[in-house]
Amino acid sequence: MSRNEVIAAMKQRVFEANLELPHYGLVKLTWGNVSEINRELGIIVIKPSGVKYEKMQADQMVVTDLAGHVLDEESLNPSSDLPTHVVLYQAFEKINAIVHTHSTNSVMWAQAGRDLPAYGTTHADAFYGRIPCTRQITEAEVKEAYEVNTGQVIVETFKKRKIHSDEVPGVLVYGHGPFTWGDSPMKAVENSLILDEICLMAKENKKINPGICEIPQYLLDKHYYRKHGDHSYYGQG
Amino acid sequence: MSRNEVIAAMKQRVFEANLELPHYGLVKLTWGNVSEINRELGIIVIKPSGVKYEKMQADQMVVTDLAGHVLDEESLNPSSDLPTHVVLYQAFEKINAIVHTHSTNSVMWAQAGRDLPAYGTTHADAFYGRIPCTRQITEAEVKEAYEVNTGQVIVETFKKRKIHSDEVPGVLVYGHGPFTWGDSPMKAVENSLILDEICLMAKENKKINPGICEIPQYLLDKHYYRKHGDHSYYGQG
Amino acid sequence: MSRNEVIAAMKQRVFEANLELPHYGLVKLTWGNVSEINRELGIIVIKPSGVKYEKMQADQMVVTDLAGHVLDEESLNPSSDLPTHVVLYQAFEKINAIVHTHSTNSVMWAQAGRDLPAYGTTHADAFYGRIPCTRQITEAEVKEAYEVNTGQVIVETFKKRKIHSDEVPGVLVYGHGPFTWGDSPMKAVENSLILDEICLMAKENKKINPGICEIPQYLLDKHYYRKHGDHSYYGQG
Amino acid sequence: MSRNEVIAAMKQRVFEANLELPHYGLVKLTWGNVSEINRELGIIVIKPSGVKYEKMQADQMVVTDLAGHVLDEESLNPSSDLPTHVVLYQAFEKINAIVHTHSTNSVMWAQAGRDLPAYGTTHADAFYGRIPCTRQITEAEVKEAYEVNTGQVIVETFKKRKIHSDEVPGVLVYGHGPFTWGDSPMKAVENSLILDEICLMAKENKKINPGICEIPQYLLDKHYYRKHGDHSYYGQG
Repeated sequence: MSRNEVIAAMKQRVFEANLELPHYGLVKLTWGNVSEINRELGIIVIKPSGVKYEKMQADQMVVTDLAGHVLDEESLNPSSDLPTHVVLYQAFEKINAIVHTHSTNSVMWAQAGRDLPAYGTTHADAFYGRIPCTRQITEAEVKEAYEVNTGQVIVETFKKRKIHSDEVPGVLVYGHGPFTWGDSPMKAVENSLILDEICLMAKENKKINPGICEIPQYLLDKHYYRKHGDHSYYGQG
Repeated sequence: MSRNEVIAAMKQRVFEANLELPHYGLVKLTWGNVSEINRELGIIVIKPSGVKYEKMQADQMVVTDLAGHVLDEESLNPSSDLPTHVVLYQAFEKINAIVHTHSTNSVMWAQAGRDLPAYGTTHADAFYGRIPCTRQITEAEVKEAYEVNTGQVIVETFKKRKIHSDEVPGVLVYGHGPFTWGDSPMKAVENSLILDEICLMAKENKKINPGICEIPQYLLDKHYYRKHGDHSYYGQG
Repeated sequence: MSRNEVIAAMKQRVFEANLELPHYGLVKLTWGNVSEINRELGIIVIKPSGVKYEKMQADQMVVTDLAGHVLDEESLNPSSDLPTHVVLYQAFEKINAIVHTHSTNSVMWAQAGRDLPAYGTTHADAFYGRIPCTRQITEAEVKEAYEVNTGQVIVETFKKRKIHSDEVPGVLVYGHGPFTWGDSPMKAVENSLILDEICLMAKENKKINPGICEIPQYLLDKHYYRKHGDHSYYGQG
Repeated sequence: MSRNEVIAAMKQRVFEANLELPHYGLVKLTWGNVSEINRELGIIVIKPSGVKYEKMQADQMVVTDLAGHVLDEESLNPSSDLPTHVVLYQAFEKINAIVHTHSTNSVMWAQAGRDLPAYGTTHADAFYGRIPCTRQITEAEVKEAYEVNTGQVIVETFKKRKIHSDEVPGVLVYGHGPFTWGDSPMKAVENSLILDEICLMAKENKKINPGICEIPQYLLDKHYYRKHGDHSYYGQG
C-alpha cells in the first residue's frame, strides 16, 4: 500500500472506532477520542476536537507526526487530548491505539481516586491485575503543560508500580477519567468498554459484600492466559 | 429577517431542543420544557403545557412577551413553569434559553437537598464550581405565586452565594428538580444532560470513596477555561 | 355504539396499554397485565395469561363479567391476577383501569416492605402522599384464595390508613410488586411508569442525604392540585 | 426427522437463543454461550468460541458428542466453557439446554460470593428457593482442568446443599458468573434474564431495608407452583 492508502485506512479505522464509543454508550456529546499510530510511517491519526459524532466523517480525522504536529494545515484541530496520546505512544512502545472517554462508571472510580481491584474473571479476561488510578496532577504540572503531564503522570504510575502496559491496557486518571489502549483502535475501544463494565460490577459487588477480596492469583492467571499469549485457547486461534 | 421569520426560527429551535429531552432520556411523559428569549424583539417562546412530545409540532410553541403574557389568543397554554423562566430571564441578563426537566439523577440530588460538588473534570468542563441547591420554598411563597417565587428562590441563591449564572449555568431546586440555561436552546439542553450525568457520577463516586474531596481549584480552572472564554482551545474555534 | 363495538374498543385500548408496558421498560417477558372495566355493561377486559407481548393481538384480550367469569368459552385464559383486579374494581368504585407489573424499582420497594415517602414534586404531581406498602399476606389467605386476598389486603390497607384510592392511584404489595390504576388503561400505565420512576429517585436520594425528609404538606398540595381537581391549571384544560 | 434434520433444528435453536443474549442486554462483546443437548442422538450443539454475535451464523454452531468431542473436523472451535456444560449435562439429567453469561447483576453477586436470597415473588416464579453461590475453586482444580472442575464445583454445591437442579435452574459461580439451564435453549435464556433481574432487585431492596427477610415458605410455594408442576394454572396450559 502507498503511504496515502495506509493513512486513508488508518482514518477509516479511527473513524469507525470513534463511532463505536457512542454506540456502546461510552460517550455522551463529544466526550471521547480514539487515535492510532503507525510508528514506521511516523504518523498518528486522531479524532478532531469537539466534532459531533453524528456529523463526523472519516476524512476529518486529523493526521499528525509522532510529536503531535498536524501535517495538513487545512485539517481540523486535533483532539485537545492529543499530547496525552503522544506521551503514551512514546512510553508504551507496543501499543497501536489509544482511547479516552468520560464513560460513566470508569469516571466514578477515577473521581473516587481508587484503583480498580480485580474482583472477578470478567476483569481477569482483559486486565492482568488491578487497574491503577494515578496520583493527582499538581498545580505546577497543570500550568506547565496539562495534557503532556497527564500523560507523564500515567507513565510514572506504571513505572513506579511496575505495571506492564501490555498486560494492563488501561488506567484511571485521578479526578478525570479512563484511558485505554490496544493493538488496534477497535481493541482499545473494547478495553474501554470492558473497563467501564468491570468498574460498574466492582462498585456494586463491594456493596453486596463489604468484605469482598480480589480473586486469587491462580484464577487471575488462568483467565488472563486463557485469552492472551502463546498458550491461549479462547477464540478461533 | 422579519419579526415573523425570527419567531418562526425561534419556534423551530425551541421545538427541536424540546425533542432532544426525551431523545437524551432526560424527560419521561411531559416532564420538561425549553424556552428561548429574544430580548430585542421582547419575545419568549416556550413549550405548550402538557403536550406529548410524540405529537408536538413546531408551530404549537407558545409566544409571549417578556412578562410571560401570551401574544396570540388562539395559541395553546404555555408551560406552567413559564413564570419561573420569566424571572430567570430578568435576573440573568446574558442567558438566551432555559430548560427544566425532572431528569432522574438531577432530581435525586434536588430531593436530597444537596449542592452538587465538583468531583471531576466532567463537571469542570461545563460548570465552574459546585452547583447550588436552593433553600426550601416557604408556604407563603407557594401561596403567593409558586412559579414566580421558584424563580426568585433561584435568583436569591445565586446572589447570596455570589455565583455567576454564566459560569454555573444550572441549579437544583430543593425538592423539585433542575433548571439549566445557555446561549441557545440546544446549549441549555446540553447543560441539562451534563448536569444529570455529573449528578449520577457524584452519587456513586462518593460511595466508592466516602472521603472523596472536590477537585483542586487549579484543575477546575484549567478544565473550565479550556472550553470557555478568550483562552479556550477546545473544539474548532 | 353497540355492545360489541364498545367491547372491541375496550380490547383495543387494553391491548395498546399492555404494549406500552414493555415499551416503557416496565415489563420483562410476560410480567404484567392491564385491564379495563365498563361498569354499565358489566364487563372487564384483561390481558390473556402468559402470552408474549410480541405475538399478542387485540382480539386475544379476554372478556369477563364483573365477577371475573370468562364470557366466551373459546377465549384464552385471562391473566392469573384477574381476581385481584376484580376485588379492586369492587372496592374502588371510581377507577376504570388497573395495571400490574414487576417493574424493577417498584418491586425493590415492595420487596423491602416499605411505604414510598413523598420526597419530591415528581411524586406529588401524581400521588397525593406516600404510597403504601401492604402487610404480608398470611398463609391462610394464600391457601384460601391467593389472588382474591391479594386484592383484599390492598383494600384493607387503604381503608385502615384512610387513603383515598383516587388520590393515591397505586400500591406496593409486600414481597410482590405494584398495582396502579386510573381513569383509563393508558392513565393507569402512566401511573405505573411514574411509580417506578419515583421509587428509583427515592431509593437514591435517601443515600445522598440519609436525613432526608418528605416534602412539606403545602408543597404536596400545590403540586397535586396544580394537576388535579377543579383548580388545576396544568395542560390544555 | 433424520439425524441431520434434528441437528439442523438444534443449530437453529442454539443460534437464535444465543442472539437473545445481546438482545436482552445479558451479554457484551462475546461474553456468553448457549448449548443444547440431545441425549438420544448423543449430541451437544454449542456456540463457537469468541465469534461476534453480529456476524455469527446458524451453521457455525459446533456439534460435539456427549463428552464434548467435536464431531466435524472443519467446524469452528467450540466455546471454551464447553467442558463445564458437559459436566452439568451429565449430572443434571433432566436439563436440555445451558446458558452462561457475564450479565452485569448476576456477576455482581457472583463476585461478592453470596447466595441470592428469595426476596420476592419475581424470584419465586422461576426459582424454588435461594440461588446458591459456589465455593471458590481451588488452585489444584484450576490447574488440573479448570472448565471441567468449574462444572464439578457446581454439581458439588447442588449435592451438598440438597438443591434440585430442576427446581433451581441456575447458579452463581464464585468470582465468575452465572450458569442457568432449562428445558430448551430459549427457556435457559429466560432463566438467565430472570436471574439477572432478581439479582438487581435483591441488591437494591436490601439497601432500602437492611433488615429485609426472605419471603415466607408458603408464598414461595404458591408462586413457584402457580407456574410449575401438575397444579400450575399460569399461562394457556
